[in-house]
Amino acid sequence: MKKLWAGRFTEKTEKSVEEFTCSVTFDARLWKYDIQGSIAHVKMLARQKIISKKDANSIIRGLNDIASRIEAGKFRFRKDLEDIHMNIEHALIRNIGPAGGKVHTARSRNDQVALDMRLYLRDEIREIGILVRKLQRAFVSQAERHLGVMMPGYTHLQRAQPVLLSHHLLAYYEMLERDRGRLWDCFERVNVMPLGSAALAGTSLPIDRRYVARLLKFPAVTENSIDTVSDRDFVIEFISVASILMMHLSRFAEELILWNTEEFGFVELPDAFTTGSSIMPQKKNPDVLELTRGKAGRVFGSLVSILTLMKGLPLAYNRDMQEDKEAMFDAVDTVKASLDVLSRMIPKIKFIRKRIEKAADSGFMTATDIAEYLVGKGVPFREAHEITGKIVRKCIESGSNLASIDINELRKFSTRIGADIRSVLTPGNSINSRKSHGGTAEELVSKRIAGIKKSLKSRR
Amino acid sequence: MKKLWAGRFTEKTEKSVEEFTCSVTFDARLWKYDIQGSIAHVKMLARQKIISKKDANSIIRGLNDIASRIEAGKFRFRKDLEDIHMNIEHALIRNIGPAGGKVHTARSRNDQVALDMRLYLRDEIREIGILVRKLQRAFVSQAERHLGVMMPGYTHLQRAQPVLLSHHLLAYYEMLERDRGRLWDCFERVNVMPLGSAALAGTSLPIDRRYVARLLKFPAVTENSIDTVSDRDFVIEFISVASILMMHLSRFAEELILWNTEEFGFVELPDAFTTGSSIMPQKKNPDVLELTRGKAGRVFGSLVSILTLMKGLPLAYNRDMQEDKEAMFDAVDTVKASLDVLSRMIPKIKFIRKRIEKAADSGFMTATDIAEYLVGKGVPFREAHEITGKIVRKCIESGSNLASIDINELRKFSTRIGADIRSVLTPGNSINSRKSHGGTAEELVSKRIAGIKKSLKSRR
Amino acid sequence: MKKLWAGRFTEKTEKSVEEFTCSVTFDARLWKYDIQGSIAHVKMLARQKIISKKDANSIIRGLNDIASRIEAGKFRFRKDLEDIHMNIEHALIRNIGPAGGKVHTARSRNDQVALDMRLYLRDEIREIGILVRKLQRAFVSQAERHLGVMMPGYTHLQRAQPVLLSHHLLAYYEMLERDRGRLWDCFERVNVMPLGSAALAGTSLPIDRRYVARLLKFPAVTENSIDTVSDRDFVIEFISVASILMMHLSRFAEELILWNTEEFGFVELPDAFTTGSSIMPQKKNPDVLELTRGKAGRVFGSLVSILTLMKGLPLAYNRDMQEDKEAMFDAVDTVKASLDVLSRMIPKIKFIRKRIEKAADSGFMTATDIAEYLVGKGVPFREAHEITGKIVRKCIESGSNLASIDINELRKFSTRIGADIRSVLTPGNSINSRKSHGGTAEELVSKRIAGIKKSLKSRR
Amino acid sequence: MKKLWAGRFTEKTEKSVEEFTCSVTFDARLWKYDIQGSIAHVKMLARQKIISKKDANSIIRGLNDIASRIEAGKFRFRKDLEDIHMNIEHALIRNIGPAGGKVHTARSRNDQVALDMRLYLRDEIREIGILVRKLQRAFVSQAERHLGVMMPGYTHLQRAQPVLLSHHLLAYYEMLERDRGRLWDCFERVNVMPLGSAALAGTSLPIDRRYVARLLKFPAVTENSIDTVSDRDFVIEFISVASILMMHLSRFAEELILWNTEEFGFVELPDAFTTGSSIMPQKKNPDVLELTRGKAGRVFGSLVSILTLMKGLPLAYNRDMQEDKEAMFDAVDTVKASLDVLSRMIPKIKFIRKRIEKAADSGFMTATDIAEYLVGKGVPFREAHEITGKIVRKCIESGSNLASIDINELRKFSTRIGADIRSVLTPGNSINSRKSHGGTAEELVSKRIAGIKKSLKSRR
Repeated sequence: MKKLWAGRFTEKTEKSVEEFTCSVTFDARLWKYDIQGSIAHVKMLARQKIISKKDANSIIRGLNDIASRIEAGKFRFRKDLEDIHMNIEHALIRNIGPAGGKVHTARSRNDQVALDMRLYLRDEIREIGILVRKLQRAFVSQAERHLGVMMPGYTHLQRAQPVLLSHHLLAYYEMLERDRGRLWDCFERVNVMPLGSAALAGTSLPIDRRYVARLLKFPAVTENSIDTVSDRDFVIEFISVASILMMHLSRFAEELILWNTEEFGFVELPDAFTTGSSIMPQKKNPDVLELTRGKAGRVFGSLVSILTLMKGLPLAYNRDMQEDKEAMFDAVDTVKASLDVLSRMIPKIKFIRKRIEKAADSGFMTATDIAEYLVGKGVPFREAHEITGKIVRKCIESGSNLASIDINELRKFSTRIGADIRSVLTPGNSINSRKSHGGTAEELVSKRIAGIKKSLKSRR
Repeated sequence: MKKLWAGRFTEKTEKSVEEFTCSVTFDARLWKYDIQGSIAHVKMLARQKIISKKDANSIIRGLNDIASRIEAGKFRFRKDLEDIHMNIEHALIRNIGPAGGKVHTARSRNDQVALDMRLYLRDEIREIGILVRKLQRAFVSQAERHLGVMMPGYTHLQRAQPVLLSHHLLAYYEMLERDRGRLWDCFERVNVMPLGSAALAGTSLPIDRRYVARLLKFPAVTENSIDTVSDRDFVIEFISVASILMMHLSRFAEELILWNTEEFGFVELPDAFTTGSSIMPQKKNPDVLELTRGKAGRVFGSLVSILTLMKGLPLAYNRDMQEDKEAMFDAVDTVKASLDVLSRMIPKIKFIRKRIEKAADSGFMTATDIAEYLVGKGVPFREAHEITGKIVRKCIESGSNLASIDINELRKFSTRIGADIRSVLTPGNSINSRKSHGGTAEELVSKRIAGIKKSLKSRR
Repeated sequence: MKKLWAGRFTEKTEKSVEEFTCSVTFDARLWKYDIQGSIAHVKMLARQKIISKKDANSIIRGLNDIASRIEAGKFRFRKDLEDIHMNIEHALIRNIGPAGGKVHTARSRNDQVALDMRLYLRDEIREIGILVRKLQRAFVSQAERHLGVMMPGYTHLQRAQPVLLSHHLLAYYEMLERDRGRLWDCFERVNVMPLGSAALAGTSLPIDRRYVARLLKFPAVTENSIDTVSDRDFVIEFISVASILMMHLSRFAEELILWNTEEFGFVELPDAFTTGSSIMPQKKNPDVLELTRGKAGRVFGSLVSILTLMKGLPLAYNRDMQEDKEAMFDAVDTVKASLDVLSRMIPKIKFIRKRIEKAADSGFMTATDIAEYLVGKGVPFREAHEITGKIVRKCIESGSNLASIDINELRKFSTRIGADIRSVLTPGNSINSRKSHGGTAEELVSKRIAGIKKSLKSRR
Repeated sequence: MKKLWAGRFTEKTEKSVEEFTCSVTFDARLWKYDIQGSIAHVKMLARQKIISKKDANSIIRGLNDIASRIEAGKFRFRKDLEDIHMNIEHALIRNIGPAGGKVHTARSRNDQVALDMRLYLRDEIREIGILVRKLQRAFVSQAERHLGVMMPGYTHLQRAQPVLLSHHLLAYYEMLERDRGRLWDCFERVNVMPLGSAALAGTSLPIDRRYVARLLKFPAVTENSIDTVSDRDFVIEFISVASILMMHLSRFAEELILWNTEEFGFVELPDAFTTGSSIMPQKKNPDVLELTRGKAGRVFGSLVSILTLMKGLPLAYNRDMQEDKEAMFDAVDTVKASLDVLSRMIPKIKFIRKRIEKAADSGFMTATDIAEYLVGKGVPFREAHEITGKIVRKCIESGSNLASIDINELRKFSTRIGADIRSVLTPGNSINSRKSHGGTAEELVSKRIAGIKKSLKSRR
């Protein structure tokens, strides 16, 4: 079929070129936004008397009809029509005749695609926001349910100090809270109306961009037509936000994979969220978590793709930019699927309290408590630290531990040590003594949970 | 010398390990923030009576003394003391004796480094914000100076429609405006006080984190001690913001490199910002621009480094995270140097009006104007588009152009064409007709410049 | 349907988990290799009497039947069967009964997927090798056709010295030649047989891995079963080779985009390989080239994905590794499509000799020739360089150029200059004087073309 | 001071531009190669009578003198002289007078820097090759020392089948062996002589490139002068090889970090390779391993930087390419330091046999052996697999395990099970039964060690 831009051309497009340049295979999923944008555009054109009311109504009916057909799976997308915009416009002209050719008045594919992508991303960020909330709820609810369970806090994957499992789980709530902040900040920059920039210079026709913005619920319009069609910041920003979010999920996935090992044995994963081995029937593999961890790399890759893509591109629109879409779609899909599956899985994770608390009570996890005890008795921190180090070494050499070592033995290291030291040497006391704001004391964690639950009720 | 953590160890650290794990070679540049943070911390410790006023004063004097010595270049940083924190604490103890060992009370290097980095980044974001402003001013001032100069607007690097050079330059203002938005949003998330999380669990000593925050002008404190020492979101977010910013600069660099070619000939670059060739004396190379373009890749690389670094790390602190600093420093330095050099260079660029306007008056740049003219006469857009295409093809075949083609010739393509078509066929009329909001009409551009200048006066 | 590994499980897999972990949506394209591998495996099993000849024959018939059905588009891939391996095995058991359950004897999906990917990549590298050759031929043939055309050689995108267009085009031949080297080196490491490593430890059944290798034309087998199922080096290496290749194509694309501008005007691109604008009918956009340039970023992104994916993964197989396939497929598809479309396009590019040669004859492109002339007369290079610089500056100031400047004027700068200097000041003489090996003299370029054409006849 | 290319310029370079474009701060480390290359170049110039023997000797003496001064730390590198090349040439002219100005005859910085980088990388690849060998030796020697130690083989970090610790360690030998293959393949492409391409077109002076190549021990010279100065493939290829290598090290680091946890307890790391905590004296942190893991990201970042850098660069040299050096240096340094420190550390790791073997004897690790046993008795694999699954589930439900379950109980699942099944249910038997080539049977592993030790004696 004849390309809509074929007027000046003497040769037909090569088949391989059609394949190479075609985007409808992936941008078809923007159809809803393309039609939504066109309807608003046409309403404005009629209001401004650029086209007649009659034509406008006929176009809108035509577009709605196309929407129904696409929804019903009855629309055939044609590769030779390049992209979603041309596919829809072509169908419109076929349906309603030459009046359909008026839909593209005072716009260009350059601002149309910017509009579609912004509409799409606006919706998806909202949905991702909801999924983040859902995941936060999952963390908080597990934290609430397990309040009181003591676990080893790790640094360098070495047991460091006892903490509450709830406190550890809430760390992920905080990460996700920052993710939400970034998402909504990004949303503000997505939420600006580009249409009316035409190819790059604006248009001589008397359009009303603010009216279109109002119809499409955009609080603002873009300020420079050249920038508008050259800009993909909003996509890059979104994928960078998504990358950080996936990084967070990858950390949690890693932890659960560790906790799910025979060696840690801290959790039992729900059957419905693990898979088996084709040759080792006893295995219960944390595939969902491994894939989540791996998918972080996928989103990082998309970020690199689109940054590289835009690097050094002269203004205004260049066809390179067509490569932005698959990166964006893939990041959206990956983030949504990962959030969804984790938020379903987490509530069903069984924490093996006995194993976790046994680990929390091991070795020398309260060494810092001794040091802080000594500081409380007036010993300079560094000295206290060194004394504690010597005590630990002694314990290791003699095969004992901090809870069992004799008080007189302890006093050989510092005469400031009194009988009251016993009280700092259990994980429970250690935890509950950490009352600095943000610390792991149960009293604080409990209060934090209450605060979070309140804020979770808010809409956004 | 004995490591501060050496208490329990039986072997000395290998030389190669000392080299491998040492960070003072690069984190020394955080010294100012390290000392600033320690002073605030010590003031709080004294206020809370965790250490005595006397000790506090002595520590503060000691730290100020160290600061002076570092500033004067008289401080020897020792690799065997690992990092900036240990170097300073060690010097402090040497200076003021055992009381120096109290500075580290109720904190850990884990929250200390988080504090230093946040203090550092807070300052640097502010400076970068100022440099972005400076660069915006450079663009706006060139835009203002050249108001009226017509140039070809490009898509696909093909001349598309005439636009104002000023309008094109302002596109970069808009990009930088979004960069500023991202920077300040990032700033909010940097600007949270981490100290008091200690190693990961908080502390049992009665510290007052909000007081420290107040002293250091942080509006908020972190909410979860485990998250606090595990978190590098603020660094990643900053580098991703920096990446988008560098991408913008790379686009401008690319354009200037093109405009500076013999073939375009749109600009003459200032001698002071170009370099010569060692073998081709006639060359005047846009090195500054090429380096800016290349340095985009550098910042993207840092982003990948740190995302990869954090991927799949279990909580809380892991030593991998030490690798965050060089990426952050390099991104800060690169962005600052690039912004600075461009904002110095841009005001001195000479635009060769004759060459630019000649290009703006060439070929078929007003084709869209014909199409819009026809739409104004009631021709459906697609039909108008096709008619115009045929006119262009005719011109090409007959070696004429749109400005010179005979009116009767034109009317063969559409009887709607009247004598008034002449008025749309010059670049000037084309430009000034584009009055849609954000369009290139001089009237709009001029107004935008006025608006921007007003907002440039604001503080941030 | 019941999962093949369901024996031990008490809960059914969640729908969302099935979606999340399913790979048949993308790994279905490995079907041919999966069946090919299974047939070889089964032949070996029978030869080693691990299964009966009869069962083997029945399995092979079943697999061939499945192959026919897939080829004919009559095979329904089921997501609930996870991946291509399970889909085929399940169909096999349905077709031929319990004997089908013997195909998986002494292997695991872990080594099976490694085999499939290696078989796939082996084929694709061969095809890419052929496409690279095709593209090399396109460059060489254009170089041969245009032997004698002089163009400006650029550094910093500034005209530097005249060169032959053919010489410039052959630079791409050399890049592609290195790409071929890397491809075949990678091929050697792909071309190693993994099957028989089973899940990770090898098998107790008396298999013959070398026989399978022979059947599948692998020259070698892997040496460590744990490494075999943990290894994706061959994929990463391939994508890194592909990244460099795409980088080369992006450079050529950039050049053609520049040459295709009105400003350069060096080429006319074939209509069949360009597209039009929906609003600017005069445009003839180099979309194919822009997309090629952009697609470089896409492959870089895949490289980052898979490197990130593998970073820090403990041995042996982890499900994260399933994420390797889409990156690999996408890199293969992108490279093939880009090579193919460019190799079709290049022969049809029209070089506008007049414009190119005019550019080659401009300005001060023979300045280096003066310097080398002076060196030939005994002037130290740096001095010669400085003299030439002064001559150029003089020309610029007086509005003249090197070809037109008077000999007496020249002699004011150095008395070593004689009348023979004229001979070095034309682009033709300049080019033909550059006879150092690899230089642009026509005599050398012509010889190089002859040499390349000979080597292009060779098989690989 | 006056720039060497200053002839034509009227303004002095801005200070900030000098800083921005200066490379001597990092390329100074190429000094040895720069001088080595210049000496060979000058010898050739004299041999070809382009300069006099006397001048040549004087230059060589001058260069050697500069080399001595640099080596002794007595050479002041000047930023205003831009780069290492200009610094050395300038010093040379100062030392020996105008004759020094002849060193740059018939070459340009463009080919000079390509030469320096190739010489540098050639040396470094050799050194890295030696370090890889050293690390391989460390793995093999630990494998040999611990032959017989049984450990759990993991997939999905779940215990899967018992394997030999030695077999597991040798997996890393194999990875490194592929790394060596890639390094030497890369070496071949580095090892080509670029000098004599001059700025981009070759030179008119009668140089002898092959002679220079002979002097510098290059087996070949580059074939196209434009390509030669545009090419950084060798750097990218090296960094991609380095990335894969670092990925391997990150995997080993991850494993050791896990094995070093209290929970796994498989290893004790040498004190000299771990560090302590400033607040938790009992900690013994695997910092070296964590940094190695983190540094993988660093090298990936450098790869992204340089790929992005080169994307879309027109030929020939562009100043962007100056950004290649820091990425290359950093990758070289990172890889060398990581290899070195690991190869020192590994021999000192203490494997806790008791803990490892206990883990190897747990649970259901011999399930596959039952399945294979059943296959040996004629049961189709899938059926055998399902039977085994049921046995495992039964064990789990009844709290027993495979080694302790009663034979009559077993026979309820399949009458094919006989008393001989006992022999497959111990880890030792399981391991030693896996005699497929590359399998974990001690006999095979032992033989492989012998084979490797033989090959380790070879030179490369």
